[in-house]
Amino acid sequence: MLFHVRMDVAIPHELDSATRADLVAREKARAEEIQSTGTWPELWRIVGEYANISIFDVEDNDALHTLLSSLPLFPYMKIKVTPLAAHPSKAG
Amino acid sequence: MLFHVRMDVAIPHELDSATRADLVAREKARAEEIQSTGTWPELWRIVGEYANISIFDVEDNDALHTLLSSLPLFPYMKIKVTPLAAHPSKAG
Amino acid sequence: MLFHVRMDVAIPHELDSATRADLVAREKARAEEIQSTGTWPELWRIVGEYANISIFDVEDNDALHTLLSSLPLFPYMKIKVTPLAAHPSKAG
Amino acid sequence: MLFHVRMDVAIPHELDSATRADLVAREKARAEEIQSTGTWPELWRIVGEYANISIFDVEDNDALHTLLSSLPLFPYMKIKVTPLAAHPSKAG
Amino acid sequence: MLFHVRMDVAIPHELDSATRADLVAREKARAEEIQSTGTWPELWRIVGEYANISIFDVEDNDALHTLLSSLPLFPYMKIKVTPLAAHPSKAG
Amino acid sequence: MLFHVRMDVAIPHELDSATRADLVAREKARAEEIQSTGTWPELWRIVGEYANISIFDVEDNDALHTLLSSLPLFPYMKIKVTPLAAHPSKAG
Amino acid sequence: MLFHVRMDVAIPHELDSATRADLVAREKARAEEIQSTGTWPELWRIVGEYANISIFDVEDNDALHTLLSSLPLFPYMKIKVTPLAAHPSKAG
Amino acid sequence: MLFHVRMDVAIPHELDSATRADLVAREKARAEEIQSTGTWPELWRIVGEYANISIFDVEDNDALHTLLSSLPLFPYMKIKVTPLAAHPSKAG
Amino acid sequence: MLFHVRMDVAIPHELDSATRADLVAREKARAEEIQSTGTWPELWRIVGEYANISIFDVEDNDALHTLLSSLPLFPYMKIKVTPLAAHPSKAG
Amino acid sequence: MLFHVRMDVAIPHELDSATRADLVAREKARAEEIQSTGTWPELWRIVGEYANISIFDVEDNDALHTLLSSLPLFPYMKIKVTPLAAHPSKAG
Repeated sequence: MLFHVRMDVAIPHELDSATRADLVAREKARAEEIQSTGTWPELWRIVGEYANISIFDVEDNDALHTLLSSLPLFPYMKIKVTPLAAHPSKAG
Repeated sequence: MLFHVRMDVAIPHELDSATRADLVAREKARAEEIQSTGTWPELWRIVGEYANISIFDVEDNDALHTLLSSLPLFPYMKIKVTPLAAHPSKAG
Repeated sequence: MLFHVRMDVAIPHELDSATRADLVAREKARAEEIQSTGTWPELWRIVGEYANISIFDVEDNDALHTLLSSLPLFPYMKIKVTPLAAHPSKAG
Repeated sequence: MLFHVRMDVAIPHELDSATRADLVAREKARAEEIQSTGTWPELWRIVGEYANISIFDVEDNDALHTLLSSLPLFPYMKIKVTPLAAHPSKAG
Repeated sequence: MLFHVRMDVAIPHELDSATRADLVAREKARAEEIQSTGTWPELWRIVGEYANISIFDVEDNDALHTLLSSLPLFPYMKIKVTPLAAHPSKAG
Repeated sequence: MLFHVRMDVAIPHELDSATRADLVAREKARAEEIQSTGTWPELWRIVGEYANISIFDVEDNDALHTLLSSLPLFPYMKIKVTPLAAHPSKAG
Repeated sequence: MLFHVRMDVAIPHELDSATRADLVAREKARAEEIQSTGTWPELWRIVGEYANISIFDVEDNDALHTLLSSLPLFPYMKIKVTPLAAHPSKAG
Repeated sequence: MLFHVRMDVAIPHELDSATRADLVAREKARAEEIQSTGTWPELWRIVGEYANISIFDVEDNDALHTLLSSLPLFPYMKIKVTPLAAHPSKAG
Repeated sequence: MLFHVRMDVAIPHELDSATRADLVAREKARAEEIQSTGTWPELWRIVGEYANISIFDVEDNDALHTLLSSLPLFPYMKIKVTPLAAHPSKAG
Repeated sequence: MLFHVRMDVAIPHELDSATRADLVAREKARAEEIQSTGTWPELWRIVGEYANISIFDVEDNDALHTLLSSLPLFPYMKIKVTPLAAHPSKAG
C-alpha cells in the first residue's frame, strides 16, 4: 500500500556540530536500512529545500508510523502523509 | 530530469454530461499516450480527492509545460510543479 | 485500518430542488448501506456546518477511495483523509 | 456531549531528557486516568506526526476545558476543539 | 453553555431580488424568534462586512446545530463555532 | 463603542516559574481592575486553548489600545481587534 | 477616530455592461459625496489590483459601518477594517 | 525602477470561444506593444500554470498601474506587485 | 511616489532590558528624523498590536529600502510594502 | 533552463556579531563567484525585506540544488523554487 510522504527538516541551530553530524549520519544509515527492506522505494530531494518527498510501500498505517518515528531526525521533522490509490488512467 | 506534479481537477458542474464524458475520455487517452513515451513514469490518485500526484521525467522546463498544457483537462486543473533532485541518502 | 475523514459539502445553489432532494436521499441511502458493512463505524455532524467527521475502517487505501467515490455527493464534496495509527497512551 | 479534539505536541528541544521523560510519563498516566472515567472514549495517533485526534464525551464546555488543561503536556500543545452533533445519516 | 459563533453571509448574486428580500425578511423574523427564547443573547454586526458575531447559550451541541440550521440563510452562510468556558480572571 | 478582542497567550517556556507566576498574578489583578471600570464587560476562555475572547466597551480606538497595552501579558500575547456595530436583527 | 480600510472589488463577470457602468458611476458619485464630508480623508489605488486602501475618520464604529454599507459596490466588495491609534513616534 | 509582477489568469469558462480567442489575441498584441517600449523587459510562463512572472521597468507606481490595467485580460487576472531594489551582492 | 508599509515588531524576549530600551529609543529618534524630511508622512499604531501602518513618499524603490533598512528595529521587524497609485474616485 | 528563486534570510539573533559578519561576507563572496559563471543572471532585493528574488540559468535540477546548497546562508534561508518556461507573448 502506497503513501506519499513529505518531510521538512529543521535541526535547531543551537545544536553543537558534533551532535548534529552524528544525528545526520545516523539518519542516513537508518534511511538506507529501511530502503533495503523495500518499504521506502522512492526518495527525492526538493530543489532548494532541506526537505524530501518519498514514497513508502507498507502493510498498513501502523507500519508506516513505526518506520517514520524510528528515524533519528523524527523529532526535528514536520511530516505530512498522503494516502495513494491506483489511478484509472495509469498505463498498464 | 524529475518533477513532482500535483493536479487538482475541478470540471464546472454546469458542463453537460456528454461534453464532460468526452473531456474525461480524451484526458485518459492523452495521459496514456504521454505515459507511453516514458516521460510520465508515475501517476497516483490521492485518496478521497479528484486529484493526482505524478512524477514527470523530461528534458527541461519547456518540455514539461508543453506536456501539461496538452492535457484536455488543463483548463480545469490547478497544477503545482516541484523540481526534484537526487537525495544523498537514496540507496544505490 | 482506520482513517479519519472530513467531508465538506457544497451543492451548487443553481441545482433545482428535485435534483437536490434526490441527490441527498441517495447519499443517505448509500451512507447507510456502507455503514451496514462495518467499514464506516463513526459519522458525526460538525456543529453549524454542512460537513461531517467520519472514521472509516477498511482493508487498504484503494478500498477507501472506492467507498468515498461511490457517494452520490462525491462530486460536490471537499474530502480530506488522515491515516490513523494506534496511540501508545490508549487505555486497553 | 461529544467533541472532536486535535492535539499537536511540541516539547521544546532544550528541555533536558529527564524532565522530558518525566513529563511524557505523567502525560501517559493522566491520559489513562481520564480514559478510565469514560470521558475520553477515542484516542488515535496521526501517522507521521507527534499529534493525536481524540473524541471526548463530557457534560459541558467547562468540563472539557478542565480535562484538557489538566494534561501535563497542556503548556506544550496546540489544541483545536470542534463540537460534534448527531448526523442524520448515522445508521441506528 | 456558551458558544461563540461567527456567520459570514454570501447570498448568490444571481438570486432575483424578490427571493432575496423574502429570504432576508424570514431570516430576521427567525433570528428574533430565537432571541426571544434566550438562547441567542448577543448579536453584533462586524463593521464593513456582511457578517455577524454571536453568543449562543444552549443545552448542548445538538441544540446549537438545530438552531443554526433552522436559519433561512443557513445554506448561504459560512459558520464557525467556538466553545467557550468560564475565564479565571472574570470579575465576579 | 464595542470591540471584539481575541488574545492568544504564549509565555516563553524559558521564563523561570517565579517570574511567570508573578506575571500571571499581575495580569489577573489588572484584568479585574479594568473590568471594575465597566470597559471590559465580557471575558471568556476558549476551550482547550490559552486564549480568551473578550468584548470591550470604550470611548475610542486610542482608549482601547491604552487598555490592552497596559496588560502585563501584553508583550506575550497575539491580539486581534474587530470593531462591532449594531445588528439590524438584534431584538430590542 | 481613524480606521484603515481595504476594499477588494469583484463585480460578477456576468453582469451586463450597462448595469456595470451604472454601478461604477454611482460608486464614484457616492465616494465623492462621502469625501466631501471629511470622513474619508485618504483613498489610494493598490497598484495592479481592483482594490483600494482608505483612511476613514468617523465618530464611531456604527458610523463607519453605515458609510461603508451605503456604497453601491458594497455587495461586491470584500472589506477589511483595522482600527488605528496614535503612534508614540509620530512627529508632532 | 523595477517591479516584480505575478499574473494569474482565470478567464471564466462560460465565455464563448470567439470572445475568448479575441481576448487572448488582443492581450498578446498589447503585451508585445508594451514590450516594444522597453517597460516590460522580462516575461516568463510559470510551468504548469496559466500564469506569468514579469519584470517591469517604469517611471513610477502610477505608470505601472496604467500599464497593467490597460491589458485586455486585466479584469480576469489576479495580479501581485512586488517592488525591487538593487541587491548589495549583485555582481557589477 | 507613495507606498503603504506595514511593520510588525518582534523584539526577542531574551534581550536584556537596557539593550531593548536603547534600541527602542534609537528607533524613535530615527523615525522622527526620517519624518522631518517629509518622506514618512503618516504613521499609525494598529490597535492592540506592536505594529504600525505607515505611508512613505519617496523618489523610488531604492530610496524606500534605504530608509526602511536604516531603522534600528529593522532586524526585528516583518515589513510588507504595497505600492500605491492615484485613485480615480479621489476627490480633488 | 531558467528558474525563479525567492530566498528569505533569517539569521538567528543569538549568533555573535563576528560569526554573523563572517557568514554575510562569505555569502557575498560566494554569490559573486556563482554570478561570474553566468548561472545566476538576476538578483534583486525585495524592498523592505531581508529577502531576494533571483533568476538562475542552469543545466538541470541537480545543478540548481548544488548551487543553492553551496551558499553559506543556506541553513538560514527559506528558499522557494519555481520553474520557468518560454512565454508565447514574449516579444522576440
